[in-house]
Amino acid sequence: MERLYLIREIRKPEKPVLAIDIGGTKISMAILSREGEALTGLTMPTEAGQGPEAVIERLLDGIDHLLSGNGLLPSNLAAVGLAAAGVIDIKNGLVTTSPNLPGWRDVPLKSLISQRYRLPTFLINDADAAALGEHRFGAGRGLNTLVLLTVGTGIGGGIIIDGELYFGSRASAAEIGHMVIDVNGPKCACGNSGCLEALASGTAVAREARGRLMRGALSSLVEMAGGPLENITAELVHRAAREGDILANEVIAQAAFYLGIGVSNVVNIFNPEAVIIGGSLSAMGDLLLQPVREIVKDRALPLLARTVRILPARLGNDAGLFGAAIYALEH
Amino acid sequence: MERLYLIREIRKPEKPVLAIDIGGTKISMAILSREGEALTGLTMPTEAGQGPEAVIERLLDGIDHLLSGNGLLPSNLAAVGLAAAGVIDIKNGLVTTSPNLPGWRDVPLKSLISQRYRLPTFLINDADAAALGEHRFGAGRGLNTLVLLTVGTGIGGGIIIDGELYFGSRASAAEIGHMVIDVNGPKCACGNSGCLEALASGTAVAREARGRLMRGALSSLVEMAGGPLENITAELVHRAAREGDILANEVIAQAAFYLGIGVSNVVNIFNPEAVIIGGSLSAMGDLLLQPVREIVKDRALPLLARTVRILPARLGNDAGLFGAAIYALEH
Repeated sequence: MERLYLIREIRKPEKPVLAIDIGGTKISMAILSREGEALTGLTMPTEAGQGPEAVIERLLDGIDHLLSGNGLLPSNLAAVGLAAAGVIDIKNGLVTTSPNLPGWRDVPLKSLISQRYRLPTFLINDADAAALGEHRFGAGRGLNTLVLLTVGTGIGGGIIIDGELYFGSRASAAEIGHMVIDVNGPKCACGNSGCLEALASGTAVAREARGRLMRGALSSLVEMAGGPLENITAELVHRAAREGDILANEVIAQAAFYLGIGVSNVVNIFNPEAVIIGGSLSAMGDLLLQPVREIVKDRALPLLARTVRILPARLGNDAGLFGAAIYALEH
Repeated sequence: MERLYLIREIRKPEKPVLAIDIGGTKISMAILSREGEALTGLTMPTEAGQGPEAVIERLLDGIDHLLSGNGLLPSNLAAVGLAAAGVIDIKNGLVTTSPNLPGWRDVPLKSLISQRYRLPTFLINDADAAALGEHRFGAGRGLNTLVLLTVGTGIGGGIIIDGELYFGSRASAAEIGHMVIDVNGPKCACGNSGCLEALASGTAVAREARGRLMRGALSSLVEMAGGPLENITAELVHRAAREGDILANEVIAQAAFYLGIGVSNVVNIFNPEAVIIGGSLSAMGDLLLQPVREIVKDRALPLLARTVRILPARLGNDAGLFGAAIYALEH
């Protein structure tokens, strides 16, 4: 049953593609050959708090810098593939809203780039891009049906059905991070309460650790943070947990529990062959994934639980870049 | 953009098909012409509490009765299309488990029927069948992507993507009723807590009404029930609500709230063109659907909320029968 999904319709195959991944924390860009080899790249902080105009200005500077630094003109490229954290209007190339890019509302990112560089440009959601990347080159190779969750600052989702990215009627669908799993739970960046993202993202892990410390719990995290509790990040909680800190382990176990509930829902809804967990929290490995597997086995409907695999992503932070490039080359 | 999905591959088109819908409360069967005309049919109580053997025995009696009563032999039929409430193993034709058919575990319903009547037999989940029926002949005609929820004794789901029923990797997927939306919520028949089904099904409505009365609330329901509170059904709550009963209206508003949360999740995950609400509770019409529409507008991500329609099912109780027949004829 192994199928090989190759990049099928190559646009000017001799030319490389510019792939850009705009996340809530950083922007990555790379020039990729058609074989998926990164020829050159750069990463910069998003500084999303400055609002869309400032972010886009620096994005364009970054592109210009990458091109000129490598002696490239836009005409040396085949296409631009963009991935962005947010709800994307595929048809019109807009970032309509984005919980992790404050102030972005119907930003015509696709036409901004295509008009400036006169290149075919494609814009998809970053987690959709990561799902495509993992399917073609990573943990999902050869599968027909999978769901990817990127668990980082926020939680994004991407769905592959019959080997192709699933888009809904108009947008990047798969906003699985904004699936409510605890209607009375904590407030989410999207305005609702108890979204998966509000309970199991990196932001949620850091918030929960800080909250427990403020309520007087003891932990090596205080010393590790070396100053204000705002210094506590999910990464720091992970480090403390590995070093045996009880509070840190409890906080991660709690996030894993909620992630397990969310993944069980996904399994019950999609009956996928695999659920792939990516994003920065996937660096926690089995500390996060093993409890998720047990909760799914326990809670998802038996037939579905028996047949699903819960896998870590393989492409790391590059999945979105790969996916954006693949999407641009295939369309 | 209107597309017409016709029954494409007709098996021995001159012969009608036997369609059977096995629900938690009743079993319906009908002999349908290829044009979707019901030639004859019968309905009987499932009496699911008696367990699978007894239910199947009466099912077979019912089929024999329907055939002989109409002077038909099995060989006069083209195929049998079965729909059942439960998690179906499509490949092996099993009802693997069913929250609303207690005791059913890996029941080989497909081979039981196909061997007895020597007819091509197909078994799918009842809500999947209803989704197919509504798509080909009901509220979803001409749409590409829709999700149907059957809100009755339980809550089932069916997903149409690109005009075709979505199955997961092995089973009838779309067990949307067992999506957890309130992790600390009431116990569900599936064993988990806070499933959509435990909060917004007919069973949940009746249980909530009874609970409020037992805690001392006043309502015309007591008199309408005419005896033990066990007589209270979702249908009775609906009747009381229409007659202005405050408690009944509150109970329905609460179920509509949870249904709205569930539908918002579905909208965020699938970005469908429509969510169709069927099942016995859809008889409540706008009393149930209007709050759902408002919650979706309020809570689903804006681009997705703007483009989705929340529609009542059109085929009523016959959607599953139609869908089972269509599936058998198309496969």
